[in-house]
Amino acid sequence: MLFPNVRRSGLPRGKQTYPLHKGSFVSSSQAILSHSDPLYRRYAEVRGLSEVLARPLSAEDQCVQSMPDASPTKWHLAHTTWFFERMILAQIAGYRPFDEDYDRLFNSYYLAAGKPFVRAARGLLSRPSVSEIRAYRHYVDEAMRLACRQPKFADLIVLGLNHEQQHQELLLTDIKHAFYANPLMPAYGTAMPFSLGNAPALEWIQHCGGAVGIGHDAGGFAFDNETPRQAVLLQPFRLASRLVTCGEYLAFMEDGGYERPEFWLSDGWALARTEQWTAPLYWLPGQTIFTLHGVRPLDPSEPVVHVSFYEAAAYAAWAGKRLPTEFEWEAMASQGPVIGNFLDNDILHPRLAKATRGLAQMFGDAWQWTRSSYDPYPGYRPFTGLAAEYNGKFMIGQMVLRGGSCVTPKGHIRPTYRNFFPPSARWQFSGIRLAEDA
Amino acid sequence: MLFPNVRRSGLPRGKQTYPLHKGSFVSSSQAILSHSDPLYRRYAEVRGLSEVLARPLSAEDQCVQSMPDASPTKWHLAHTTWFFERMILAQIAGYRPFDEDYDRLFNSYYLAAGKPFVRAARGLLSRPSVSEIRAYRHYVDEAMRLACRQPKFADLIVLGLNHEQQHQELLLTDIKHAFYANPLMPAYGTAMPFSLGNAPALEWIQHCGGAVGIGHDAGGFAFDNETPRQAVLLQPFRLASRLVTCGEYLAFMEDGGYERPEFWLSDGWALARTEQWTAPLYWLPGQTIFTLHGVRPLDPSEPVVHVSFYEAAAYAAWAGKRLPTEFEWEAMASQGPVIGNFLDNDILHPRLAKATRGLAQMFGDAWQWTRSSYDPYPGYRPFTGLAAEYNGKFMIGQMVLRGGSCVTPKGHIRPTYRNFFPPSARWQFSGIRLAEDA
Amino acid sequence: MLFPNVRRSGLPRGKQTYPLHKGSFVSSSQAILSHSDPLYRRYAEVRGLSEVLARPLSAEDQCVQSMPDASPTKWHLAHTTWFFERMILAQIAGYRPFDEDYDRLFNSYYLAAGKPFVRAARGLLSRPSVSEIRAYRHYVDEAMRLACRQPKFADLIVLGLNHEQQHQELLLTDIKHAFYANPLMPAYGTAMPFSLGNAPALEWIQHCGGAVGIGHDAGGFAFDNETPRQAVLLQPFRLASRLVTCGEYLAFMEDGGYERPEFWLSDGWALARTEQWTAPLYWLPGQTIFTLHGVRPLDPSEPVVHVSFYEAAAYAAWAGKRLPTEFEWEAMASQGPVIGNFLDNDILHPRLAKATRGLAQMFGDAWQWTRSSYDPYPGYRPFTGLAAEYNGKFMIGQMVLRGGSCVTPKGHIRPTYRNFFPPSARWQFSGIRLAEDA
Amino acid sequence: MLFPNVRRSGLPRGKQTYPLHKGSFVSSSQAILSHSDPLYRRYAEVRGLSEVLARPLSAEDQCVQSMPDASPTKWHLAHTTWFFERMILAQIAGYRPFDEDYDRLFNSYYLAAGKPFVRAARGLLSRPSVSEIRAYRHYVDEAMRLACRQPKFADLIVLGLNHEQQHQELLLTDIKHAFYANPLMPAYGTAMPFSLGNAPALEWIQHCGGAVGIGHDAGGFAFDNETPRQAVLLQPFRLASRLVTCGEYLAFMEDGGYERPEFWLSDGWALARTEQWTAPLYWLPGQTIFTLHGVRPLDPSEPVVHVSFYEAAAYAAWAGKRLPTEFEWEAMASQGPVIGNFLDNDILHPRLAKATRGLAQMFGDAWQWTRSSYDPYPGYRPFTGLAAEYNGKFMIGQMVLRGGSCVTPKGHIRPTYRNFFPPSARWQFSGIRLAEDA
Repeated sequence: MLFPNVRRSGLPRGKQTYPLHKGSFVSSSQAILSHSDPLYRRYAEVRGLSEVLARPLSAEDQCVQSMPDASPTKWHLAHTTWFFERMILAQIAGYRPFDEDYDRLFNSYYLAAGKPFVRAARGLLSRPSVSEIRAYRHYVDEAMRLACRQPKFADLIVLGLNHEQQHQELLLTDIKHAFYANPLMPAYGTAMPFSLGNAPALEWIQHCGGAVGIGHDAGGFAFDNETPRQAVLLQPFRLASRLVTCGEYLAFMEDGGYERPEFWLSDGWALARTEQWTAPLYWLPGQTIFTLHGVRPLDPSEPVVHVSFYEAAAYAAWAGKRLPTEFEWEAMASQGPVIGNFLDNDILHPRLAKATRGLAQMFGDAWQWTRSSYDPYPGYRPFTGLAAEYNGKFMIGQMVLRGGSCVTPKGHIRPTYRNFFPPSARWQFSGIRLAEDA
Repeated sequence: MLFPNVRRSGLPRGKQTYPLHKGSFVSSSQAILSHSDPLYRRYAEVRGLSEVLARPLSAEDQCVQSMPDASPTKWHLAHTTWFFERMILAQIAGYRPFDEDYDRLFNSYYLAAGKPFVRAARGLLSRPSVSEIRAYRHYVDEAMRLACRQPKFADLIVLGLNHEQQHQELLLTDIKHAFYANPLMPAYGTAMPFSLGNAPALEWIQHCGGAVGIGHDAGGFAFDNETPRQAVLLQPFRLASRLVTCGEYLAFMEDGGYERPEFWLSDGWALARTEQWTAPLYWLPGQTIFTLHGVRPLDPSEPVVHVSFYEAAAYAAWAGKRLPTEFEWEAMASQGPVIGNFLDNDILHPRLAKATRGLAQMFGDAWQWTRSSYDPYPGYRPFTGLAAEYNGKFMIGQMVLRGGSCVTPKGHIRPTYRNFFPPSARWQFSGIRLAEDA
Repeated sequence: MLFPNVRRSGLPRGKQTYPLHKGSFVSSSQAILSHSDPLYRRYAEVRGLSEVLARPLSAEDQCVQSMPDASPTKWHLAHTTWFFERMILAQIAGYRPFDEDYDRLFNSYYLAAGKPFVRAARGLLSRPSVSEIRAYRHYVDEAMRLACRQPKFADLIVLGLNHEQQHQELLLTDIKHAFYANPLMPAYGTAMPFSLGNAPALEWIQHCGGAVGIGHDAGGFAFDNETPRQAVLLQPFRLASRLVTCGEYLAFMEDGGYERPEFWLSDGWALARTEQWTAPLYWLPGQTIFTLHGVRPLDPSEPVVHVSFYEAAAYAAWAGKRLPTEFEWEAMASQGPVIGNFLDNDILHPRLAKATRGLAQMFGDAWQWTRSSYDPYPGYRPFTGLAAEYNGKFMIGQMVLRGGSCVTPKGHIRPTYRNFFPPSARWQFSGIRLAEDA
Repeated sequence: MLFPNVRRSGLPRGKQTYPLHKGSFVSSSQAILSHSDPLYRRYAEVRGLSEVLARPLSAEDQCVQSMPDASPTKWHLAHTTWFFERMILAQIAGYRPFDEDYDRLFNSYYLAAGKPFVRAARGLLSRPSVSEIRAYRHYVDEAMRLACRQPKFADLIVLGLNHEQQHQELLLTDIKHAFYANPLMPAYGTAMPFSLGNAPALEWIQHCGGAVGIGHDAGGFAFDNETPRQAVLLQPFRLASRLVTCGEYLAFMEDGGYERPEFWLSDGWALARTEQWTAPLYWLPGQTIFTLHGVRPLDPSEPVVHVSFYEAAAYAAWAGKRLPTEFEWEAMASQGPVIGNFLDNDILHPRLAKATRGLAQMFGDAWQWTRSSYDPYPGYRPFTGLAAEYNGKFMIGQMVLRGGSCVTPKGHIRPTYRNFFPPSARWQFSGIRLAEDA
């Protein structure tokens, strides 16, 4: 996906069962590839993917918003563009904004940039149209050519690209939620080849504890919330070798998991009662599930996803285990490679773990809820300028998730990466990895 | 509009400032005009207007829903079609529904026809697309040719056409609300010629009271809620000769109308506080208003619209008058012709009253709140069959409005016509006519 | 109760199973009886009953408020006192209010008298104490001696006494609701002798229709909402000879009454789903009910009470009948005497209808929901002064009930009396009388 | 209370400015001192204080509940009693519960002990009465004499006493909230001698960081959430020498603290807007505040209390500082003595800091919000049995507070003590201590 030229040669066309990310992007990226500026080349790659992701969606699909936490596709496309315009282009003398009104419409939550439009009402923005937003993107992309050559903007551009990647993931989780609200339950992608297998046996991988380095240091991009790097003391612990499977989660359900308060945090129990949870989100009657590829039978060997933190913690309590802390997770994850089932696989659903020595599925497939609240690291300093509002102001009431998912763009994730959602959130590809004291 | 052949010749093209309802409808209606069946001819006229009304709207515009009481344009287009399919075509042996799923999606509230889709979530139905719904309409329209020749369906077809006309009005009030929610405040129609004038002086037209006949009898179509006709005793009263103007309403506002509880019903006062009402809906700062033709200066001489019953009653109390009962209104209205500013004028906003002897603006321009709760008439019987749910089950918690508005299709309104909305409703073209005891 | 000396002789002591209204009231009323002023004598009678009603309640009982629509006992005691103080005593030069703060605490909804205390928070007023409120009552009662001799206050005093009687009824319905919220389900009164009998067969009493006089005229006290008297044309109709019994209502329930939307008004159906209604309020599992005399078996022959208008209308639809209009009810009721099971019987629950010719239970036992919205009569004028807010501002969103109940003070009710509650209200003693077209 | 005759002679009346926590408690404990069992002696001391605290309150005062998070006084008195009965006495063969129904009424949240009564409705329990609950307490206290001699119950008894002490603090914060809801704003305690002074200058006390031991080990009682003890690595930091004063907080307010989103966490800003916060809870117009001793002028030199975590964090951001982590706080606090302004001082409000070398006000006066979410310590294990629900199930969505307050019973607090409340909570005596990186 991100490297379509490679892919085109690397994959026999006949086996391509998921052709949606094709066509025009190829040509536009070819034009981009001839561009001499590596930053703009990267810029064009990332930006191009957003448009590819929107391609299977009609104008109406791109307009709907199924809940306040989700945004319409075209809002994602416009907001990420506004981010570049407002953070970078606005600093360039003579730059003329595409439309003065967009500041009001496509600001997400940067109060320093004015009063954002009501979040829950983004789905009412039938105007500007999908095609106007496409024109907006092209307008800004053109202007960014120049910006990409100015070193002073490099950091902000890289931030903007990482920001856009985050929205690429959200675009997919949000349209999944919107399609699920429609009784027709449309599929976003074409049917996925589906074959049952058995998940490898669960093993426990030991960490001996002691002082470990946590957080990002020197090399490459990181968000402010991953810094500064710090030393942390760990007790010995063990991590499960793979994610919890649907079959394992079914055993919890069949053992009364959703009816037995003793496994649940108090708030979680109350919410599960109110919302009448009896299974993960997107599970349907008759052991079928709704996926981005449509409705299909539940595969007991694939990882369970779309569980809240509350459900993850209840499952862990039922299993006699616990969730890892984010430090434990990172201590383990930083020892291995960042490989996994990411968005570039075109399989928009977690897959069966591979039989492997040691830890599987540390990256990709499913975000892993940790037993760590999203607090600042010692010595944490937010980005400066408008970007100061990026992470810090959300450091309350949320839990840390690690590892990325099947819809995380490849190259976006790191061992130090801290994602965060409220403990009630279920619409992300969030799953469970267990831990235990050693 | 409803008689495009007349209009085409009757109006010089050069003065047409509102060309949206043109084009393909003309040709399709020509095809229809050649049709020999008068009922189907009428069917085609009414059905054609719905599509004309949707024409200025993009696919995205047709998908949005700005509040639970409003529906997306394309939902209106599909629901009215479903009404014919479910009420009539489903009775015809061998008729194959266009799509079995539509029963779930486009049933509004007919519980006898299955569980309707959640009303507040209609805006999430990005699928079926606008073009699929167009195909649905054509499919049903074709099937209805035959049905129109079967006398047993005649009454239901006429009901369906009146039903569709109601949704034509709602289509416009709903898209107005949706566009207002968008900070861009798009215009539905092209700019309306706008010229200030003076409203004629308010006069009081006397009715001597006594026994009057109320409700519909023999001739022509009427909804069940207008029947049976009954004799009612009235006290002598006087009715204002025209609607309350924006200028008169401004005087109420400037006299503290929204801050003085003594004018308000208790529930109205509470709601006005909660919702922080300080003016009618769609009034903007700087004495401008949002209309279906875009934002323009407030015209003090045109009728005030988009007031709730609470505001209408408060205004009347402030003015030392009262609202008429629905019986008083009907007793007066049944003495005059059904003429006024309706949808076919292409002016989607109420206009200045004409200087006239007697009562002006009894029909068209603005629905007139009455001081009558929407109770059944003595001896009321609902329609039979599925249509039994049409009116009767809403006879609680609503107030009667009379007279139609500037977006009511011509020919749809009658002196006996009872519209009804909760006292809090503001998004309809609802205005005020005063009354007093004689 | 109201005439304790009569009652003492009229009833053999041995059968008195409900001794709560005894004792000190006797002596205080004896003191009052020697008072030479007939208005003050009446004043003392009515005021004394309020205190008698509070007697079985502890200080804590008198403080609780179980929902915003209900008020604590001591608030009723204080508010009715404040009504006399604010409406009458405040006009007397030199009168010094008992406590300046009470204006803020005990104003119910008279916005012209200042900002009332938040209705839903009345249960938080642990101070002033029950004994301070008793002192307040005595202080005002003393001052009222003089006021009762001033003819100019006579009308307001009579209004105040009728107002206090309304609160006497509410005191009982509100404490019933509060006690029901307590899992201990305390009884207010002592155990009631309970004997099953059979309700007389339901008959249909005919009215020939035509012009009837509705509303109060010359003689005696009436609320503003009962006036002016008007002529109304009625169609012929029949009224059921007695109230619907619990047994009849059980048949509705057993026939799926609460699961079949075809019987229900739309709003009623929605509310019944949301609130999960499956029976009238205060019905308990195992065919028992909670009464002011404690929990006891359901008596199928006694009138059903504590149903909302929605349930009453659904029952009527199920029975193939309808509810009477308030005009029909009054036309019938004004032909008979105002007798029935009222508060003075000390039986705080509706009783089995007596076998009788003609209409039974027109007064007392249970308020009867009518199919009439609470709209103003033609020519309606509110009281003047502060009392203007008494009735008129509530003329929206409510249905009229007629006839009084088993907890209505004797002498308080009239054929023209219009009570009103929202269609959702269930905590009053509200029951069902059927009607049908003749 | 328990032995009032002793009290009258034991204390000179003239010096009693706030007699409620005096005397009787002293005397009752003297009576208890003669008891030979040291555990029961302690039991009687703690239990006696609860009754002393209730003494200034009428039966009505003890019944009110001003919000779901607060409980009525008498509920606190009963629930703490139920805790002993259910956790301990129920294990003793032959023990007969005081009232079987109390299990339903006075269980707070122990789902393993049955379904608790609805939390928000505790204020509706007018029955059982205050005197019945007093009898309940005596009944259980008698039965506990025996239990105190059985070593197997010792741990649970000590837990029950610490539990009761927590409710003693809540009893006071809850009645403060209830009285504040009453426009009369009653005082709980007698007027407090009040003298302005100047707070000592703020100094910064350095900690050099490194490995520190955190959490409780061997000696004495601790809650499960303080364990197990662990080693934590700290960066060097500095702690403010005293709490933030009202005067300092006023400067924040005057600098637009409540209007400038840049200081606020996102959730905090949203809540502050919704709730229209402009000052700490209990601040009144005219720089006065409501205290348990009544309304009095704001003292700028006393610590600010009744701020939420959001306000504490916003203040810290405005001041260019931050809140300490709970580890930083404990590392400092464990170096000093546990002294401060506690409940036994009878001054139910925080006091001016004393001029001192080093850290002042680490204990007492005000709970100190930390920048630490309430997560479990590594290796955390809940208590066993019913008490398992004591702490662990609340470890989500809450922030840790440290140090105790002016209404914390003396002897209840420890350096390792972890209190916790949601970041929105304001009705506790919660204040601010600043920290900074060194």
